[in-house]
Amino acid sequence: MNLEEISALKHSGGGKVVLLVMDGLGGLPERPGGATELETARTPNLDRLAAQGVCGLHQPVGPGITPGSGPAHLGLFGYDPLVHKVGRGVLSALGIGFDLRPGDVAARGNFCTVVDGVVTDRRAGRLSSDRNRELCERLRGIQLEGAEMHVETVKDYRFLLVLRGEGLSPGLADTDPQSTGLEPLAPQPLAPEAERTAAVVRQFIDRAGDLLAGDERANMVLLRGFSSRPSWPLLPEVYGVRAAAVAVYPMYRGVARLVGMDVLATGETFSEEIATVAHHWDDFDFFFLHFKTTDSAGEDGDFARKVELIESVDRELPRLLELAPDVVLVTGDHSTPAVLRGHSWHEVPVLLWSTTCRSDGVRRFGERECATGSLGPRIPAIQLLPLAFAHARRFDKYGA
Amino acid sequence: MNLEEISALKHSGGGKVVLLVMDGLGGLPERPGGATELETARTPNLDRLAAQGVCGLHQPVGPGITPGSGPAHLGLFGYDPLVHKVGRGVLSALGIGFDLRPGDVAARGNFCTVVDGVVTDRRAGRLSSDRNRELCERLRGIQLEGAEMHVETVKDYRFLLVLRGEGLSPGLADTDPQSTGLEPLAPQPLAPEAERTAAVVRQFIDRAGDLLAGDERANMVLLRGFSSRPSWPLLPEVYGVRAAAVAVYPMYRGVARLVGMDVLATGETFSEEIATVAHHWDDFDFFFLHFKTTDSAGEDGDFARKVELIESVDRELPRLLELAPDVVLVTGDHSTPAVLRGHSWHEVPVLLWSTTCRSDGVRRFGERECATGSLGPRIPAIQLLPLAFAHARRFDKYGA
Repeated sequence: MNLEEISALKHSGGGKVVLLVMDGLGGLPERPGGATELETARTPNLDRLAAQGVCGLHQPVGPGITPGSGPAHLGLFGYDPLVHKVGRGVLSALGIGFDLRPGDVAARGNFCTVVDGVVTDRRAGRLSSDRNRELCERLRGIQLEGAEMHVETVKDYRFLLVLRGEGLSPGLADTDPQSTGLEPLAPQPLAPEAERTAAVVRQFIDRAGDLLAGDERANMVLLRGFSSRPSWPLLPEVYGVRAAAVAVYPMYRGVARLVGMDVLATGETFSEEIATVAHHWDDFDFFFLHFKTTDSAGEDGDFARKVELIESVDRELPRLLELAPDVVLVTGDHSTPAVLRGHSWHEVPVLLWSTTCRSDGVRRFGERECATGSLGPRIPAIQLLPLAFAHARRFDKYGA
Repeated sequence: MNLEEISALKHSGGGKVVLLVMDGLGGLPERPGGATELETARTPNLDRLAAQGVCGLHQPVGPGITPGSGPAHLGLFGYDPLVHKVGRGVLSALGIGFDLRPGDVAARGNFCTVVDGVVTDRRAGRLSSDRNRELCERLRGIQLEGAEMHVETVKDYRFLLVLRGEGLSPGLADTDPQSTGLEPLAPQPLAPEAERTAAVVRQFIDRAGDLLAGDERANMVLLRGFSSRPSWPLLPEVYGVRAAAVAVYPMYRGVARLVGMDVLATGETFSEEIATVAHHWDDFDFFFLHFKTTDSAGEDGDFARKVELIESVDRELPRLLELAPDVVLVTGDHSTPAVLRGHSWHEVPVLLWSTTCRSDGVRRFGERECATGSLGPRIPAIQLLPLAFAHARRFDKYGA
């Protein structure tokens, strides 16, 4: 069922749903046959929810696919990431909290090194973020005809370019030749309506080349992933809910904003995030609550810290449950096993709790027990939110 | 695999399949963690079939989707309900056993109250069926130019309008404005070929308004869901079988007729239904046997009665098995948990019995045990009938 078909079934009224995402929750044992991070963690509150609700493992994008954070979250929000694609430029903007407006054209930029006209280092010697900030400040001196320009540091050698103005189009090919020894490519329009935008980008590149000419390493820019904010059906309209996002990191706030959620101001800790949910409890029907650091610990290869962080979420959970949500969905956006030090393709533990669940015999929230639960060992992530809203009694019957 | 692809594999000959549908079979416990209706019922015969066959839970339409009876049965017959849609007019006709012919245009009608041109009650004070019958009799006095007209009482304030004649089209918008305080809408053609039909409907509405003018409450009609019998691949041709339906209620007889089954005359009880199957055993390869009252008990919130009704089916089952079917598929069309007093989105217990099953360790026919069975906890309903016909040895190999 696609979003339009689901949306046709919504009605007004229904229960409150909380989606708690522990980023990169899924894990692997340190030694084959051992316990994963989640299985190692002492999680009495999650275990109780698991025992009363239904469990499973979800597949974020597809079999064997390791998702990035953007697609993984879109999946949890019910948007098929293979259909609802977000360009790299837009993802860069979301990642630094840039207020991207409809019609803006965003691109991911690299500072690079060019010698005798060919790229010799696509990352300008892995530039520092501080140096990046100095160079971005210099680029802000550029005046473009036909568009307002924003240049923002992302990290290391990466920056964000945003063009704002009437009639711009993101239909441009990358200027990054993708390997050294080649010339930077001229910005090519992929459709007639992008010709003017290509001309504006050409101006930017020419002026950037002039301004950076003196630098030994970062003397040119490469641009990729020209893209604009997509115009998708928005989550509040699809499900007929008032939807709020509580997340500390800009990327997740940005993806939530992309699907139309209200992004709430919050603090830096999970405890403060729960306080934010509590403060706004009466104003929304759906809360997306994001916990980031389980993923960071996984990326760092720190098994013990990931275990501790999962336990810290479990300890705070009763404060969330005191609010008496009707439906609670707890999962990760993808797996980040500490032993792999990065995102992986493994299915992700998920529990769905409501008073209308048929208990499925799972007693502990962990990968191996979840694989035996009645959500099944490979439920597509995009099916979870519709299921949660069904338990919240927010849909009419399909057909008579 | 779609119906055409499946059909390409059929061959002549093969075993006999019985599909026994206990309407609304799936349930929920009265208290979290308790037993469902089916789990509470004493069902030694179903349990024996479950132990020898394979079990699972099927998903009627999609995750979180609560199906109506029409789509739910189409799914069990192997027709994707998201592709094979039936209009409300056609469903109304099926529901009262009206003999809808190809080319007929059917609409669901409401008697309503109009004051000063605007609808003040879309249901005419929830009219009684008796009064409805009197009003339908009055409407039958209408003579239309260009079409034969049938008006039939459905229930309460609802009636069925069927137009019959050459060149009619169902491409008309609803005349029901969907809320009070608005004028009834004029019948609008949605395509040029429906213009003449719109004119016929306009005549009907004008004449109905004249004939009902004296009534205080039911002084106008609203029409919705203009539709015609779909022309789908028929089940007997798809699978190469002689297919019979044994059902007491008109709706299920109608849906079976829609996919080309022969609908057999039968009695009012399950015992009589089994006698009907026995009587026609040699004449058909496939029997759809429908048991309605489990759903009714669920709708009434009567947990104990639903349990008793399931037990009554189990007691009669040996008489069906004595006929020695090659494949038996037992399931519900959807869940109707007594605690929810209505259809729900929950997956539905299913058992498939044949001598070519790999037994999967399920010993009891109930929701929680079925969730662990080898059909899986969320097999799409449309996959069940092809699987049953495979066990009946009715398909050739795919490819060499």
